Amino acid sequence: MPTTPAERSEHDEYPGRVMAGEMAQQPAVLRRILDEGAPRIRAVAREVAARRPRFVLLTARGTSDNAALYAKYLMEIRLGLPCGLTSMSTTTAYGARPDLKDVLVVTVSQSGGSPDLVASTRAAREAGAITLAVTNNADSPLAAVSEFHVDVLAGPEKALPATKTYTASLLALYLFTEGLRDGDTSAAGALPELASRVLGRQDEVRALAARYRFAERMVITSRGYGYPTAKEAALKLMETSYIPALAYSGADLLHGPLAMVDNVSPVIAVVTQGRGGEALQPVLDRLRGRGADLFVVGPAAQVSAASAGFVLPTEGVPEELQPVLEILPLQLMAYEVTIARGQDPDAPRALAKVTETR
Amino acid sequence: MPTTPAERSEHDEYPGRVMAGEMAQQPAVLRRILDEGAPRIRAVAREVAARRPRFVLLTARGTSDNAALYAKYLMEIRLGLPCGLTSMSTTTAYGARPDLKDVLVVTVSQSGGSPDLVASTRAAREAGAITLAVTNNADSPLAAVSEFHVDVLAGPEKALPATKTYTASLLALYLFTEGLRDGDTSAAGALPELASRVLGRQDEVRALAARYRFAERMVITSRGYGYPTAKEAALKLMETSYIPALAYSGADLLHGPLAMVDNVSPVIAVVTQGRGGEALQPVLDRLRGRGADLFVVGPAAQVSAASAGFVLPTEGVPEELQPVLEILPLQLMAYEVTIARGQDPDAPRALAKVTETR
Repeated sequence: MPTTPAERSEHDEYPGRVMAGEMAQQPAVLRRILDEGAPRIRAVAREVAARRPRFVLLTARGTSDNAALYAKYLMEIRLGLPCGLTSMSTTTAYGARPDLKDVLVVTVSQSGGSPDLVASTRAAREAGAITLAVTNNADSPLAAVSEFHVDVLAGPEKALPATKTYTASLLALYLFTEGLRDGDTSAAGALPELASRVLGRQDEVRALAARYRFAERMVITSRGYGYPTAKEAALKLMETSYIPALAYSGADLLHGPLAMVDNVSPVIAVVTQGRGGEALQPVLDRLRGRGADLFVVGPAAQVSAASAGFVLPTEGVPEELQPVLEILPLQLMAYEVTIARGQDPDAPRALAKVTETR
Repeated sequence: MPTTPAERSEHDEYPGRVMAGEMAQQPAVLRRILDEGAPRIRAVAREVAARRPRFVLLTARGTSDNAALYAKYLMEIRLGLPCGLTSMSTTTAYGARPDLKDVLVVTVSQSGGSPDLVASTRAAREAGAITLAVTNNADSPLAAVSEFHVDVLAGPEKALPATKTYTASLLALYLFTEGLRDGDTSAAGALPELASRVLGRQDEVRALAARYRFAERMVITSRGYGYPTAKEAALKLMETSYIPALAYSGADLLHGPLAMVDNVSPVIAVVTQGRGGEALQPVLDRLRGRGADLFVVGPAAQVSAASAGFVLPTEGVPEELQPVLEILPLQLMAYEVTIARGQDPDAPRALAKVTETR
């Protein structure tokens, strides 16, 4: 069996082939969104902005829910719009029909096919909301039922652990949010090349993954813009390797779960360069004080002060765009840890690609 | 060392003495809220209702965050008010200043002392929000900075794992929410007696706890009103026993983490009698189909169909009030599992009672 990407051809059969292929497409997908998707996203944003939403509700599940959480930070910080994440069962199980005048409801779904997302979005539109679907399928029922649609242009995603649709959704949501305020999005132009550089360091991640081969549990933490990255990294690790991975905002970690962290619970910290990383600093100090095994994704100085880490190249990338890059080494980590444990990242035991919750 | 409550006197020193004492006070605390607190809470609710909030933001951390999530379900379902949970760092780290006109900001905190909660509530009030603090300390900085205050009247809480302030906060938030719609709250009158019956079955829980003595991880699931219970039960288990306990809504569980559930990952399901429990049914069927070790807190028929469980008495208690009772056997479970593992529920390794995140 080939063991490094260079030894493999696209026709080889090896564990994780599908996931590896889709991870590798991410720079091209980001480029496609910037080149082909951005003008259309900007036009949708202008139409939505003209309706002057006062609140935003974000609806999603799984990986898309982590993308929605990223959008929540963006919209609260960059636009000053109060946001909430939907508790979907209030609509689908309890039939709640809130008054959604002046409310923008954003539903994020890779497939656009989950019946509960379609039902809750339809109910939101009937209740007066401005509805926007962010999906990877322009022909999906969710796109059809929503007033507005943004296509994340990631191409067909076959691997059960979603990767390229996550980073594509982040970038599309960034472009949409900045579009609402008619902001400058030129900094995003650096992302495809930087993503390519990060993904080119798979051998480095493979060496680092060895430390988690026998881990029984992991804790992943961050604050601010990096928190959705922590949640998505935990989900990816669980989906592929089945290691119980617990994601906490740094502040929540101090409120209880810290009791669980010790020298047998490795911690991954996502340290964004900016205010989120600064706010995480006291948590990092506390973790080091407890002798935690700390792995950092972030700036070189933070990696040096930790047990191990991955130095993230972020030249010229503002804090709010760093999540598009931060998740990449952690996708690779989930993949490599799974391979190291003798499992197949393409064959999670229980996942279906379109989850039919109702 | 005494091993059953009957053998212990209040002066005995034994592991978990403080937590046990506070759990046992819960029926009396619920009675006090109904007798002494309810009129004041109703008056506050009337004043807030007159201001006609259109959107609710809930702010909290740790155990109080789970109480806030319960309030989110209540307000969305019972009032049709769109709600969101605050991402606090957007205010405290990034300085976001959203327009909060027509927004009710509810901050839930046992101590009322966390600097970041005080700062974010002050910022919300300056941004035009109607601010309500729900705390166990009427003299706290948080109560002082908020326009309105509801005292949960739980008395001093000394144990690091919060128990009585959780159920007290749930009941206070229920009375407040029903007060906003001038609803009938008489069904709550049954809670103190039912809570007393549940807490009287500690020996039953002790026997059940033996199955988790060697568990390396646990999954806790529910849907609807029971979902905050699942999250709080997971937090309690982690704080006391350090078992990694992962809480998922039933729908989210099917979107990925189900891969982690197998015959070595026991599952606890909180099955509320009502629409939440009905919506969970397909998830329960799927878990049973995978051969999961399933422990149910809920109705007798659901417990019979599971590997084990605790039959919850809920006569005459509507679904939206069942969370006040559901958490009690799970508090006892966290306590008993911790004792069974030779640890002390009163001495978590890393918790401070007032967490000073900023």
